[in-house]
Amino acid sequence: MRNIDEHSITPAVLESFAQCSDPRLREVLSALVQHLHDFAREVKLSEPEWMAAIEFLTATGQLCNDQRQEFILLSDVLGMSMLTVALNHAKRPEATEATVFGPFHVHGAPELPLGGDMGAGAAGEPLFVNVTVKGPDGQPVAHAQMDVWEADAEGFYDVQREGLPAAQGRAVFRTDAQGGAHFKAVLPVGYPIPTDGPVGRLLQATGRHPWRPAHLHFMIQAPGYETLVTHIFRDGDTYLDSDAVFGVRNSLIGDFQEHPAGATPDGDTSATPFHTLRYDFVLEPSA
Amino acid sequence: MRNIDEHSITPAVLESFAQCSDPRLREVLSALVQHLHDFAREVKLSEPEWMAAIEFLTATGQLCNDQRQEFILLSDVLGMSMLTVALNHAKRPEATEATVFGPFHVHGAPELPLGGDMGAGAAGEPLFVNVTVKGPDGQPVAHAQMDVWEADAEGFYDVQREGLPAAQGRAVFRTDAQGGAHFKAVLPVGYPIPTDGPVGRLLQATGRHPWRPAHLHFMIQAPGYETLVTHIFRDGDTYLDSDAVFGVRNSLIGDFQEHPAGATPDGDTSATPFHTLRYDFVLEPSA
Ligand SMILES: [Fe+2]
Ligand SMILES: [Fe+2]
Repeated sequence: MRNIDEHSITPAVLESFAQCSDPRLREVLSALVQHLHDFAREVKLSEPEWMAAIEFLTATGQLCNDQRQEFILLSDVLGMSMLTVALNHAKRPEATEATVFGPFHVHGAPELPLGGDMGAGAAGEPLFVNVTVKGPDGQPVAHAQMDVWEADAEGFYDVQREGLPAAQGRAVFRTDAQGGAHFKAVLPVGYPIPTDGPVGRLLQATGRHPWRPAHLHFMIQAPGYETLVTHIFRDGDTYLDSDAVFGVRNSLIGDFQEHPAGATPDGDTSATPFHTLRYDFVLEPSA
Repeated sequence: MRNIDEHSITPAVLESFAQCSDPRLREVLSALVQHLHDFAREVKLSEPEWMAAIEFLTATGQLCNDQRQEFILLSDVLGMSMLTVALNHAKRPEATEATVFGPFHVHGAPELPLGGDMGAGAAGEPLFVNVTVKGPDGQPVAHAQMDVWEADAEGFYDVQREGLPAAQGRAVFRTDAQGGAHFKAVLPVGYPIPTDGPVGRLLQATGRHPWRPAHLHFMIQAPGYETLVTHIFRDGDTYLDSDAVFGVRNSLIGDFQEHPAGATPDGDTSATPFHTLRYDFVLEPSA
């Protein structure tokens, strides 16, 4: 241990975990150390590069607060988020596919009755959403908790705007006895992930664009089923094939329809064109 | 790109760097992504584990400030710091070996004349340090800038103590025309790295102790030579063979001597026992 070199350092660190009482923690950390060391040896990491990495990680952590999660964003753009999703949701083909959680979910969003308006003043064209939540054999999942969150017409989530008095573009609904849920929202648009931090600088330095194709986020929880975290995407978006966070699935493209001004699904009348969205979610039963 | 799975995600992320105009950045990031993805697949990283990692990294960054660098500490305990040093300092055998920089260096420490007391009030037994700085052929390196920093008798660096009016246990000296430097310090003692943050929790969870064997830090800079960042260790320390940051080198163990009360090397008299340290540094010429 007193004369470690660039090769013997790795077994020395692995050996340091010998007294770890949690076998899974030891397994995960040992694999992490092995791969991080292999990475450093492979590229012959220089000391200025090491310091740049320290400074990058520090700045990433320092930007995080209750409203911003730059480390999730970093995981997203490096494909680690989607990889983790893929590793944990290889389930029956009829179940709705999962995708990235993203950095913009907020715990404790307001619970609204079915038919409510989750836009709550957010700018955007009206969107009437009508979905169902079922099990793999078509059985309705009643009273499922459905978190929905989306950006406004300018591509910002409410938490990215200063001084809003209340939530906009996010709500919690509960499915009815038939597993259905309908509510009003705003038409989602594509947006750039935040580019004013370390992750934005990384994208810039690597010649990558920051755009995500238009989507609504859903998290659906119900007893007896695995929690589903996913998006519904709009077809035709420029960025469906180059999503900055690698989250698109063909099966997650929803049935968006545009309608002229007139009678709306909520029994009202719209003076402007409006949109509807239909989608049927299928939950995976708990293991 | 719309139907990526746990394997195709990796080439998709690598392909996203295709427009990167900096070939070295592309090389480093590509290797990092490949190894991180391989790690996640190998351990089949779960979503709670992914979230725990996000929270760990976030807490690590949030603890960093002008006086504390928890990410360097993390790199240290995972062996990444020592690995980076080893990759970049495989030089001629007569040159003094490098070791970890650590999180406690401060830019702009006070410059003291030779013979000065860098302890500056820090608790500890008196230590009289006498070193030389030479090139590989024995030529003296005059006017080299020598940053020295150390913990006090309780194992704390000045930056770990609140409200100190001035630096203690850190100074900058310049070698004389013969490459010599002598100064007064305090006898270094072993100390635990900070355990009140995420890195401390990691050590605790893996059954590792946080101790470092007693040492003085040196950074020596001179025109025409590579900067040397190293430590001088005290022989006989309990933790020389289990340094929490893997930094010990046999060649870095200094000649510490204990002396009874009496005449000291600075021409004064000590009423208590005191210590001396001799060491000869050899710098590597710049490439
Ligand atoms: Fe989003
Ligand atoms: Fe130290």
